[in-house]
Amino acid sequence: MSSITTETMLAARWHPPSYDIRIEQVPIPQIEDPDDAVVKVTVRSSIGSDLHVYRGQQPFTKIHTTGHEFIGEVVKLGSNYGQNAVQPTTGRPNLYATLSVGDKVVAPFTVNCGECHVCRIGYTGRCPVGALFGSPKLDGGQAQYVRVPKAGGTLYNLSSPASWSSALTATSNVETLLKNISDSSLLLLSDILPTGVFAATQLLAHPKIQPMLTGRPWPPNLDPSNRLLTIAVIGLGPVGICASVALLDALVHKDLPYRIVAIDLNESRRNKMKKVYEAIGSNGKGSNGEFVVQGLEEAKETVAKWTGGVGCTGVLEVVGNNSALTSAYELVRPFGVITSVGVHAPKNVPFTGEDLYNKNISFDFGRCPARAMFPMAFELLDVFGKVGTESSLIDRVIDIRQASEMYRAFEQGKVGKVLFDPWS
Amino acid sequence: MSSITTETMLAARWHPPSYDIRIEQVPIPQIEDPDDAVVKVTVRSSIGSDLHVYRGQQPFTKIHTTGHEFIGEVVKLGSNYGQNAVQPTTGRPNLYATLSVGDKVVAPFTVNCGECHVCRIGYTGRCPVGALFGSPKLDGGQAQYVRVPKAGGTLYNLSSPASWSSALTATSNVETLLKNISDSSLLLLSDILPTGVFAATQLLAHPKIQPMLTGRPWPPNLDPSNRLLTIAVIGLGPVGICASVALLDALVHKDLPYRIVAIDLNESRRNKMKKVYEAIGSNGKGSNGEFVVQGLEEAKETVAKWTGGVGCTGVLEVVGNNSALTSAYELVRPFGVITSVGVHAPKNVPFTGEDLYNKNISFDFGRCPARAMFPMAFELLDVFGKVGTESSLIDRVIDIRQASEMYRAFEQGKVGKVLFDPWS
Repeated sequence: MSSITTETMLAARWHPPSYDIRIEQVPIPQIEDPDDAVVKVTVRSSIGSDLHVYRGQQPFTKIHTTGHEFIGEVVKLGSNYGQNAVQPTTGRPNLYATLSVGDKVVAPFTVNCGECHVCRIGYTGRCPVGALFGSPKLDGGQAQYVRVPKAGGTLYNLSSPASWSSALTATSNVETLLKNISDSSLLLLSDILPTGVFAATQLLAHPKIQPMLTGRPWPPNLDPSNRLLTIAVIGLGPVGICASVALLDALVHKDLPYRIVAIDLNESRRNKMKKVYEAIGSNGKGSNGEFVVQGLEEAKETVAKWTGGVGCTGVLEVVGNNSALTSAYELVRPFGVITSVGVHAPKNVPFTGEDLYNKNISFDFGRCPARAMFPMAFELLDVFGKVGTESSLIDRVIDIRQASEMYRAFEQGKVGKVLFDPWS
Repeated sequence: MSSITTETMLAARWHPPSYDIRIEQVPIPQIEDPDDAVVKVTVRSSIGSDLHVYRGQQPFTKIHTTGHEFIGEVVKLGSNYGQNAVQPTTGRPNLYATLSVGDKVVAPFTVNCGECHVCRIGYTGRCPVGALFGSPKLDGGQAQYVRVPKAGGTLYNLSSPASWSSALTATSNVETLLKNISDSSLLLLSDILPTGVFAATQLLAHPKIQPMLTGRPWPPNLDPSNRLLTIAVIGLGPVGICASVALLDALVHKDLPYRIVAIDLNESRRNKMKKVYEAIGSNGKGSNGEFVVQGLEEAKETVAKWTGGVGCTGVLEVVGNNSALTSAYELVRPFGVITSVGVHAPKNVPFTGEDLYNKNISFDFGRCPARAMFPMAFELLDVFGKVGTESSLIDRVIDIRQASEMYRAFEQGKVGKVLFDPWS
């Protein structure tokens, strides 16, 4: 069991207005609220959406510690934990009663209480008392220690079967799974993997997609001969790759016919996607599908050829800018579905009401409810373990002191996803 | 059986640029394609979306006959009907084989072939060879006769059990239903009723709404204690009223708890909605719901009170302008669903990508696939017959020669929905 041994710690701090990350000695965070926990960070990572802050695209002025993905170990708990949680009477999520010092935890990128209406219905990404790690409201995980508010609702406890998905507990293969998966792979749970799973689930769950999956028609007059699902994934960063794998997993599991075109302008990202797809193996690909990785223009021709010019059943937009939204609109069929999990800027979307009306577009926007998706994402880790996606999603593990250079390189596309070891 | 007895007919013609409707003698339309039918119009009506053209909000320059809702009788058929349809071998929709001169038909507001992928999956409102009645591409129904392209896919044949919904055929109460329902009520089938049913169905079918209906969670961790559906309907024109009734019908049928606030700025529309709701009776209202009719500001307070400030599970936007979209955004909860069936202008929607991301908004935009919704809408006519909605949705039946004055009065909100009798 760890304990805090120094008064200060290393942290990567964002300074306004932009492009200024500094490694500084700051005080170790303490318990400020009875629901708080303090977590010793073992590993954390950079991710594309950090760049919005890094580039000064958010109207932030407050200096804060960056980083919204981390794994660590609980070293301090507020007074509301253990015996005091009295979970049966308070009806608090079980973790308020079971979280202990020494537990290994994964944090979603947002705080969520787990108790309010929004959290209980599964929309944990928008908990009214929530906050984003690595924002002016809440220091992030790119440090040696992090304070986690509402830790009982927020943290995913890898040391407690209570937080494992029933499927995994049932097959009692969690210990094995945890043994076989490195921290850097587990870190995919913080954001990337649940966001990919969320994007895929949200798309496949849409009523305009459902008929293609189940044959159960909506509106009620579907001809079964039209059940060939055609999906485009725009943006093959780590989230786009996870979303593609989650899509394949869901479709192949149901042995559904599919055609997927995974799109990125950047060749090295396309190659990474191809590498992952190859690694999946014939079982993971199913006998019934077609999966291609292409640039945008080539992909438009592919979709036109596949669908006789009608367009994709659905499009996953995993970039988060207007040109990606425009491409999604161009690729999708009339009555098609566009699921956007990209983080968008305070800029008007590039659509008129007439555009959307004329093509009967359905949109799903917004942040993944990461904590709510953990159980599903955790199961998919098994697949990622098998296909060794980890190695292709994580470029390298580096000393936190290099954070500033790494952000610059990452922003310029010179490196992909990197992990930071705060203790090296 | 009717036959064409004159060479010319009366038609209400739109003249550019705007606010200019003239009653003119024009040639009776003839068969131009083997798939055409010519229909003698018995009654047709005005509807809000006609106003977009009337006001010159669409970039139209071509003089054309207005009107996209009509009921009539088939007086001429192209050579592809009856024996020549060879339906089993061609796989054409049954109506190409069964449609006959003398049949009583309802037209959806768009042409749809019924044969292409888009039509067969039920998205008839966007058939690639489709066209909107009462547009430069296709003369409308505000005349004594109309040419109907792809009539076998387009027309709903009231004289043929083949086009009745199985539910109705099963209970073999169609004849009764047809006897009890006047043409002016049947005319609701053209656009208003299917659009209302579509709006309600689309909202209730959304995966973010489904957990609230079935308790089957998405994402998978729903607490059943949070299944109280809160819905706002913005805009209480005829479509908004039909949408509200369709919502109630679906929810009460499943005995689901609900809270619905029906919103309009116009008091006479609110009173019409109240009148309809009263007429539904306790069976139609269920024991489990709350339904209020209010102005926007009052409704915002109601929703805040009902949901503790969280917002509506879903919002139906039945107006078709940016202020209605903005109100929908303000009323809906994080992870809420906005279904917009209003016809929107070529103006940017009033949202930034950040707005939509920050509230995890799901949108459904666009035109009702009217023909595909007919069977469901037809069943709901039964309800409308019972509650006498007809009388409250239709203000008056007038001579087609008054079309010009009526459009002016309708545009100025001085009259509600009016029916035109082309033969008076």
